[in-house]
Amino acid sequence: MTTVLLLVILCGVLSIAYAIWATRSVLASDQGTARMQEIASAIREGAQAYLARQYMTIAIVGVIVFLVSWWLLSIYAAIGFAIGAVLSGAAGFIGMNVSVRANVRTAQAASRSLAAGLSVAFKSGAITGLLVAGLALLGVSVYFYVLTGPLGLAVSDRTVVDALVALGFGASLISIFARLGGGIFTKGADVGGDLVGKVEAGIPEDDPRNPATIADNVGDNVGDCAGMAADLFETYAVTVVATMILGAITFAGTAVVDSVMLLPLAICGACIITSIAGTFFVKLSPNGTIMGALYKGLWASTLLSIVGLAIATWGTVGFGDIGQTAKGLEISGLSLFFCGIIGLAVTGLIVWITEYYTGINYRPVRSISQASVSGHGTNVIQGLAVSLESTALPTIVIVAGIISTYQLAGLYGIAIAVTTMLGLAGMIVALDAFGPVTDNAGGIAEMSGLPSDVRKSTDALDAVGNTTKAVTKGYAIGSAGLGALVLFAAYNSDLAYFVEQASAGNGSGEFSYFQGVAPDFSLTNPYVVIGLFLGGLIPFLFGGIAMTAVGRAASAVVIEVRRQFKEKPGIMAGTERPDYARAVDMLTRAAIREMVIPSLLPVLAPIVVYFLVYAISDKSQAFSAVGAMLLGVIVTGIFVAISMTSGGGAWDNAKKSFEDGFVDSAGVKHFKGSDAHKASVTGDTVGDPYKDTAGPAVNPAIKITNIVALLLLAVLAHL
Amino acid sequence: MTTVLLLVILCGVLSIAYAIWATRSVLASDQGTARMQEIASAIREGAQAYLARQYMTIAIVGVIVFLVSWWLLSIYAAIGFAIGAVLSGAAGFIGMNVSVRANVRTAQAASRSLAAGLSVAFKSGAITGLLVAGLALLGVSVYFYVLTGPLGLAVSDRTVVDALVALGFGASLISIFARLGGGIFTKGADVGGDLVGKVEAGIPEDDPRNPATIADNVGDNVGDCAGMAADLFETYAVTVVATMILGAITFAGTAVVDSVMLLPLAICGACIITSIAGTFFVKLSPNGTIMGALYKGLWASTLLSIVGLAIATWGTVGFGDIGQTAKGLEISGLSLFFCGIIGLAVTGLIVWITEYYTGINYRPVRSISQASVSGHGTNVIQGLAVSLESTALPTIVIVAGIISTYQLAGLYGIAIAVTTMLGLAGMIVALDAFGPVTDNAGGIAEMSGLPSDVRKSTDALDAVGNTTKAVTKGYAIGSAGLGALVLFAAYNSDLAYFVEQASAGNGSGEFSYFQGVAPDFSLTNPYVVIGLFLGGLIPFLFGGIAMTAVGRAASAVVIEVRRQFKEKPGIMAGTERPDYARAVDMLTRAAIREMVIPSLLPVLAPIVVYFLVYAISDKSQAFSAVGAMLLGVIVTGIFVAISMTSGGGAWDNAKKSFEDGFVDSAGVKHFKGSDAHKASVTGDTVGDPYKDTAGPAVNPAIKITNIVALLLLAVLAHL
Repeated sequence: MTTVLLLVILCGVLSIAYAIWATRSVLASDQGTARMQEIASAIREGAQAYLARQYMTIAIVGVIVFLVSWWLLSIYAAIGFAIGAVLSGAAGFIGMNVSVRANVRTAQAASRSLAAGLSVAFKSGAITGLLVAGLALLGVSVYFYVLTGPLGLAVSDRTVVDALVALGFGASLISIFARLGGGIFTKGADVGGDLVGKVEAGIPEDDPRNPATIADNVGDNVGDCAGMAADLFETYAVTVVATMILGAITFAGTAVVDSVMLLPLAICGACIITSIAGTFFVKLSPNGTIMGALYKGLWASTLLSIVGLAIATWGTVGFGDIGQTAKGLEISGLSLFFCGIIGLAVTGLIVWITEYYTGINYRPVRSISQASVSGHGTNVIQGLAVSLESTALPTIVIVAGIISTYQLAGLYGIAIAVTTMLGLAGMIVALDAFGPVTDNAGGIAEMSGLPSDVRKSTDALDAVGNTTKAVTKGYAIGSAGLGALVLFAAYNSDLAYFVEQASAGNGSGEFSYFQGVAPDFSLTNPYVVIGLFLGGLIPFLFGGIAMTAVGRAASAVVIEVRRQFKEKPGIMAGTERPDYARAVDMLTRAAIREMVIPSLLPVLAPIVVYFLVYAISDKSQAFSAVGAMLLGVIVTGIFVAISMTSGGGAWDNAKKSFEDGFVDSAGVKHFKGSDAHKASVTGDTVGDPYKDTAGPAVNPAIKITNIVALLLLAVLAHL
Repeated sequence: MTTVLLLVILCGVLSIAYAIWATRSVLASDQGTARMQEIASAIREGAQAYLARQYMTIAIVGVIVFLVSWWLLSIYAAIGFAIGAVLSGAAGFIGMNVSVRANVRTAQAASRSLAAGLSVAFKSGAITGLLVAGLALLGVSVYFYVLTGPLGLAVSDRTVVDALVALGFGASLISIFARLGGGIFTKGADVGGDLVGKVEAGIPEDDPRNPATIADNVGDNVGDCAGMAADLFETYAVTVVATMILGAITFAGTAVVDSVMLLPLAICGACIITSIAGTFFVKLSPNGTIMGALYKGLWASTLLSIVGLAIATWGTVGFGDIGQTAKGLEISGLSLFFCGIIGLAVTGLIVWITEYYTGINYRPVRSISQASVSGHGTNVIQGLAVSLESTALPTIVIVAGIISTYQLAGLYGIAIAVTTMLGLAGMIVALDAFGPVTDNAGGIAEMSGLPSDVRKSTDALDAVGNTTKAVTKGYAIGSAGLGALVLFAAYNSDLAYFVEQASAGNGSGEFSYFQGVAPDFSLTNPYVVIGLFLGGLIPFLFGGIAMTAVGRAASAVVIEVRRQFKEKPGIMAGTERPDYARAVDMLTRAAIREMVIPSLLPVLAPIVVYFLVYAISDKSQAFSAVGAMLLGVIVTGIFVAISMTSGGGAWDNAKKSFEDGFVDSAGVKHFKGSDAHKASVTGDTVGDPYKDTAGPAVNPAIKITNIVALLLLAVLAHL
């Protein structure tokens, strides 16, 4: 048993080793000219300054939560919280620090060849990806090892469960702040900079005369790299923890319980190895596309993961029968192995569907390009139509995944499928995190006046980034949808455990708070229906606040840039240097200020609903309403998130379709600068906060609502 | 008992009498100049031609459904279906025929005074409103009377229940076709006409040189008048029927069951009287606003309805205790009376919230106007932010309504609240249906070259119409949200009834299909979760298809108008008359063609889900999944519908704010024709299909999913 756990920890260490190796390899690349380095250092300083301020703000919240969880729960929970928060922050911090160094090296490499640019950029992305997976796995497995080994706690002891849940909460709290703060920063800079630069001043994107251009590049790193890394870290950690807990519950009291709890860790360990292996398959073939090169890596990881999954199953639970679910379904290791394969299939299908909805060569994006020909309004209408429609196929895939894995191995089967799905996080994040690097590389190429073919290479890399970014987000939210039942089951079985212990009447008075509680999760219960409504409201309200925040930050940027243009007339002539730092500083303050209120929404919502319903009705109904809220937030969240991220990606690529000239249905070719292209820029602007702020932040909002509900139970149990 | 029923029927007859009186009064008004009459007759002919073709298409579907329900259920069900379909269609048909005659008379009256214009337009709206309420009430009460009186069936006989449900289905089928077909027609004409007229040719809205201008005015009538009337007819009928069924179930076997079933009919009867009374309060006071005049009527109806509610309660169940719910809650007539008052309060709050989010003087619309100053993109971003945010307060009001009425009188209390809410439909629809009349009046004033102050009067009426239209839609979807549990309860108790009868084992073999069925509606059941997901998908997919259909219809209009401008160069010079009929005809065909597929989505979805889940698992899980689907479609539907209708209204009024000049935060005043105004036009274009096609069609989609599920049960019971 311990051997398997140590092997898992070794896999985690290997991912760190890969990250170190890859970092050295990236840093060893040529840094380009002095001008390029100067620009890169401005971006780096801005990004570091932002992240320092963001982490400082979160640290204040973090210290309070640390103390509160120590007081209300235990020191183990408090330490778990700290581990989750620190590692989640570290994944983002290190990833971003590599990213801000890889950008200039990618620009330099791209000036040699497209393949060289891809190589540096992808390696940088892979560092973030493997750090996310590795640190999350290490955090969970090492802490689990320490608690159950040296500290001698039973694997299914409440203290262990609480400590792991607190670890998830630490990761979640960082991720929601990082996603929102980073998202507001990056899109405030992007939208604001474009409005005043491209539209008013008529200068191209990334033109060094635009005072917001450094802020825009800083934003790519803090939002798309650090924010995304924290988000996926959290999804990964929460899923693994929830699967372990569910395994402990499903097989409680049987001989296999220890191996069942190790299975998710073993799967993740194996998938880290296959992800590392997959990175070596990402190579641009002579006549191949960039997307093709990336897919080679993804498919290699996926196929190898089947082998890894088999080994992980064999090494823990074996392939034979291991027990029955509460409903009498016989579960075997083989059926769990098939559930894992379904998880991989769901990943593959979601990648494929997202590519269809956001790829430049398919109907959805082409329909938006076509609609741009008749104007701004029709572009936005068609974009919204695509964004709404894009939710259909992923939902059907998720539903099929839920049904098939449940039929195979009950709830634990669903959990194993989600775990396997997230096992590939290292590879998927790598595909995503290379986006900001190439985006920055393009900016640096533009600002330092590199030849236009370098920009063309970085643009080609960047266009692929739009799709891979949408893919990662679809993958994250898809795993949340598939995992909805797992998180709800964790809540439900925790609650059932407390109620059972309370009514056991052993005189100890433990969990006495839960005496007589009988939650009713049936849809016939009005408190379940209001829970669904209130949970369903969160993604909408949250999205609305996030969009408003971006609008406000962008307006502030517009005013600042206009002020600089006015006060320093030499900027436009190119004789005066704009004050880049002011825009960065202003956005930093705006983003940090704007991120706090919406971040608290999913944290406070379950608590407020619990106590309000308790005041109106009773504890049972209050627990029922909160439970329903957990599903409500996913039921609307999955649609809001998918529609925003796919729609945004489609708008962005519809705009890009004009760069090579878009041939409309009447055979007329529209180029950059045409009216149709201008209409497509409007859609892209709308899509920016959709896909990079509001949409992706829905995922941590879902997770945090769930985790807070679990912690609420734990705290009430301590009363 | 029969006395009360006859009194209710009398109230229904009174509403028809009011409609006849008001129609004569409208028709007696001055029709204006020959030019005005010529334009009005073109609009009238187009609208009639469209409606004739639409009803022809629906008739084909209707005859098939009639025969199938005769075959699968009973002749009573088939007749019920026919009554629902014919009356729902009639409400729309008559309302629209008055509307296309009132438009020119309103224009003429407005040339005398604003108050006179308001009077004619509102009277025309009130005709539609009272026809909707009156015909729906008559349909349900007369058929109920015939079935239970002359035909001698017991009030809670399955045949009666099936017949009433079929009546609801008839109304629903018409309403989804009418909402979608009308919505696609009107917004295809509006968006397409604006794009090519305002943007390309630079001619104002409603300019007679625009070949799409008659189509635009036709669209106002067929979409906003006929479509809306059919929708509210259906909501009204389905709610009354569901409340009656729920009353029959809750009080089955007790002495009060007959009076409990009459209570919803009595409430609606009383509210028709108060709605008629309210219409006489709508008068423009010397210094008052138009909205103020309308609100006087609404508040008068609402306050009088409290008295009506008291009389209805007193005349049926009385104020004393009448029985207990299954959970042991004592229900009194007084508590039901309070539930009714809560229903009125929910209506008032939703009106107030919608006015806040769409009114021109409040923060949300002003924030969109402000965002227009920085461009098209920020206008759309802020509009989407407002649209997402606008879901919050209505949801909280609905949740509060559910909880408070449930605490007072259980599920039946919720049902009474919804019934009372819909009792006001006559008045609310009147507020809405006056919108297309004033919109048309403005068009006629413009096209016939009336002095600009006439246009100013009609514009002022029209601006109010944007808010009242959003109010009606918020009200319709709000009642759906509040009624969600009632519809689900109808499904659940029908199912329970069949299962109970089947297992009673009386040897008759009746309902044998349901033997051994044990649905599990708990959120812990994965089939419930997939039901929620699949139901939740319907509004998104449906919305996406509807938006695409509008975009396609609008593009077709653009091409047609461009062709006419090219082939008839005299049009722009004003020497040649455009071929208005071609655009109308083309849109008619497009709308009818595009409405069929999305309309079938909510009809087929429950059936497909039932048989798929049955094939994979068993009957119990299939019924569970379908039940969850009914709630899933409401949980996302309510957010999608509110966000689309409020957001669209806000965009429209943000555009209107530039007509009198909008002062931005920097103190600069932006007028019509400014860049900020142009940006606001983009938002308005996007909002058009949002608020008039996709958003409002969500309501019938929710209702039809529910009704089909009930019919599915009835059909399976006959196997």
